[in-house]
Amino acid sequence: MASTLAAMFDLDDVRVATPPTVDELELRPPRLAPPDTLASLCTVDPYERAAHTYGKSYRDVVRALRRDFSRPPDVVAFPRDESGLVAILDWCASIGAAAIPYGGGSSVVGGVECDVGDDSRGVVTIDLRDLDRVLDVDQVSRAARIQAGTYGPALEDQLRPHGLTLRHFPQSFEFSTLGGWLATRAGGHYATLMTHIDDLVESLRVVTPRGVVESRRLPGSGAGPSPDRLFLGSEGTLGVITEAWMRVQERPRFRASATATFTDFSTGVDATRALAQSGLYPSNCRLIDATEALVMGVGNGAAHILLVAFESADHPVDPWIDRAVECARDHGGTVDDTSIRRGSGEETPREGIADAWRNAFLRAPYTRDSLVKMGMINETFETAITWDGFESLHDSVVSAVHDALRSVDAENGVITCRFTHVYPDGPAPYFTVVAPGRSGAELEQWAAVKAAAGEAIIAAGGTITHHHAVGRDHRPWYDRQRPPLFAETLRAAKRTLDPDGLLNPGVLIDP
Amino acid sequence: MASTLAAMFDLDDVRVATPPTVDELELRPPRLAPPDTLASLCTVDPYERAAHTYGKSYRDVVRALRRDFSRPPDVVAFPRDESGLVAILDWCASIGAAAIPYGGGSSVVGGVECDVGDDSRGVVTIDLRDLDRVLDVDQVSRAARIQAGTYGPALEDQLRPHGLTLRHFPQSFEFSTLGGWLATRAGGHYATLMTHIDDLVESLRVVTPRGVVESRRLPGSGAGPSPDRLFLGSEGTLGVITEAWMRVQERPRFRASATATFTDFSTGVDATRALAQSGLYPSNCRLIDATEALVMGVGNGAAHILLVAFESADHPVDPWIDRAVECARDHGGTVDDTSIRRGSGEETPREGIADAWRNAFLRAPYTRDSLVKMGMINETFETAITWDGFESLHDSVVSAVHDALRSVDAENGVITCRFTHVYPDGPAPYFTVVAPGRSGAELEQWAAVKAAAGEAIIAAGGTITHHHAVGRDHRPWYDRQRPPLFAETLRAAKRTLDPDGLLNPGVLIDP
Repeated sequence: MASTLAAMFDLDDVRVATPPTVDELELRPPRLAPPDTLASLCTVDPYERAAHTYGKSYRDVVRALRRDFSRPPDVVAFPRDESGLVAILDWCASIGAAAIPYGGGSSVVGGVECDVGDDSRGVVTIDLRDLDRVLDVDQVSRAARIQAGTYGPALEDQLRPHGLTLRHFPQSFEFSTLGGWLATRAGGHYATLMTHIDDLVESLRVVTPRGVVESRRLPGSGAGPSPDRLFLGSEGTLGVITEAWMRVQERPRFRASATATFTDFSTGVDATRALAQSGLYPSNCRLIDATEALVMGVGNGAAHILLVAFESADHPVDPWIDRAVECARDHGGTVDDTSIRRGSGEETPREGIADAWRNAFLRAPYTRDSLVKMGMINETFETAITWDGFESLHDSVVSAVHDALRSVDAENGVITCRFTHVYPDGPAPYFTVVAPGRSGAELEQWAAVKAAAGEAIIAAGGTITHHHAVGRDHRPWYDRQRPPLFAETLRAAKRTLDPDGLLNPGVLIDP
Repeated sequence: MASTLAAMFDLDDVRVATPPTVDELELRPPRLAPPDTLASLCTVDPYERAAHTYGKSYRDVVRALRRDFSRPPDVVAFPRDESGLVAILDWCASIGAAAIPYGGGSSVVGGVECDVGDDSRGVVTIDLRDLDRVLDVDQVSRAARIQAGTYGPALEDQLRPHGLTLRHFPQSFEFSTLGGWLATRAGGHYATLMTHIDDLVESLRVVTPRGVVESRRLPGSGAGPSPDRLFLGSEGTLGVITEAWMRVQERPRFRASATATFTDFSTGVDATRALAQSGLYPSNCRLIDATEALVMGVGNGAAHILLVAFESADHPVDPWIDRAVECARDHGGTVDDTSIRRGSGEETPREGIADAWRNAFLRAPYTRDSLVKMGMINETFETAITWDGFESLHDSVVSAVHDALRSVDAENGVITCRFTHVYPDGPAPYFTVVAPGRSGAELEQWAAVKAAAGEAIIAAGGTITHHHAVGRDHRPWYDRQRPPLFAETLRAAKRTLDPDGLLNPGVLIDP
């Protein structure tokens, strides 16, 4: 990869930074000491404190490589059940410490960072990794009660013997938990319909500093504003999600996929829109621009690529893929017949561009860390926008990012775009920026790009995040996007559920 | 109908009550006088005050037939734009009057009644019928900006020239407005997927006593808890929805439908569940029990009937209906080949059982009023429940209603059940009760049935409403269903947005 980057950006030399070991770090001494009753649930071990200092954003990786761990949690707590969690929250309340709920720590927006607004305040990070079980499976209703600290792979491992699957596969799947997905409204596997984890929730159980909130298991309801919707996206500020009844499914047995290519990006956009509005609801429907396709190793740099796929546990999906291919061709796409794959059985062989892209997608978190180690600025940001506003948003984001790169002497950086999810009324575009950083100045360079992108997105009418959450990093733009009176109601909810302001201060709302 | 009822319930005679005319009513004098500046927007006309006294519940119709209009609004206001609405709210605030937002007045749960908790308080009903326009159409994104007071037929009339449709057809379609649908989370046309109006919302604009809340037009977002979801289902207690960007669609060109019959209801339930979990997502998927089918004129009283239909603007739906028929047959249903209808074109002829049922469904609001005029107790209630809990809920609701009917000397009443909407994890069952009432005691008889049904639904784990809303009538059960701390956050939201408690006091929450 180093030689590829050197060639791509005309660099003399790419040095690969070495990650720190824990003995290199000089963590400030913990300012809190857990009481004896909580000793078995808490640690001040330097490795755990360092490991819980950051999420997984570009800025986090850079700071970690710089050995900058200036703001670690004082204590990391690992409750083994709800009573342990309540005891930890009570202790935090009694000493005025901040409590940061922590799932897999894969936040890319500063969502689990110990920047709580007051550096004299002690911080306890509460890692839910021991709440890691599927507690109940309801085969009839296709639902499962799952603890919030369950990581993606462990969750699927426990559902598999029942022939079931949640089918929520964010890029962070391996590194993130159900509770984190729920708290951040994570985007998942499906490109259409059930795009967010929100859509798979039957009920939630949440421990707040004021007590437990548990909603009723319901397939649908019209009884007042939805209680679940208050906690979905609350990012650990209103309570700690401890478990949820989730809608699960039979494992798919039938699959079909195809790849369309376009010489012109806007033609690809129109074809994708037609598919999104067709009522076919493909499970995958990703438009990848030519540069991104090249970077991901699935294209030649000239063709824009649309991947479309269907899956079903119930029926062969040939009529679906046939109509999707017809639709793509009608809208200017080239679909090579050999790109159309059909199959049945649990282990449908997946090949070709779609599979290459899938592998690159799954590898991306590793790739990203390597890029950062090699001194590259690497940022992704994503949004959603109605179709009528997409072209203008795309152009202004690309232009703003290029201007920002120029302003920080990184004008040879590249920006690529793909759609991660599509709706009848608009796409969710995902942008990736890669540029060689200047040693020591990477964070300032990154900040300029990040700010330019956020400004362009908000000005063009998009959302500051479709599925990466708000955290601390997106606050300036989220605050402008959010209706002011809605912000006031969120603060009122916060005062009701967390009157002492224990939970994740600085995220989403200020007191 | 009178002779049918006489035979059905072995009655000697069925008298048909006469609706009141306005000159028969002795309304209390209005206790409020609008200021001159609002005179052109307000009326104290007795007809308008009487017409805005009730919604359309059984209890409302009975009270109206009894000439009981003891609690009319003092003033009915008809704002013509937002500035008029703001001026009316300001006036209410200045005199301490309650303000009741009013769409079509089709509430069946006391949602627009002037029972505001304090009978000495003046009441202004704010009817939005003059906000009745489709303001913008975005053909590219398939979205339209629509004023909240637009009635169903007028809304479709304004979209039709654009080739578009909202496809939200609640039973109240003719008598209800977009704003009412949004405020009550109305259930609509689609039996699967986009079952509630919530799913069709791109953004909302809401006038609260503290100011305007307007959310951003977005096809999807993960930026914090959804602002729209706070107002969807808020039933006029947090603000007055004035307009919304709604997701609209091309008019369907392809249709297919079929009818399956079952000799055993639980076999029909299992087949419906299989369809709901198939990923086929039929637009119609209604299981109707044998008695309901008989009453609706679509069955012989022995067969339980499953109606299934697909529609599309994009593609013929033959593979969809073929698989659905196969699925129904695999699960014990009888599908006569002649019941399978396919067609294309805007005016696909609809015939057979499905069409007969559709006509009966559309006629139901008229039928209901006639039943009440003939002295019948007629109540409908609906819920949603996971599949594993349905049989037990059904049995206990039916048994509780029969017990209640016996306790009020109406033991020959009938109770029927159908599914209005189905989800992968459960159905939305809809129950109808018809029994001959005892003249003068109908409301007590009705109250006993209503209470028994509510208790049984809540005890069995259902929701007190899937799409009829909470209003004033469902409060006792809603309060038990709703997590107490969530109730506190709703009250906090109310204090934030409506600090003087102007809006619809008594609905959803107490101060």
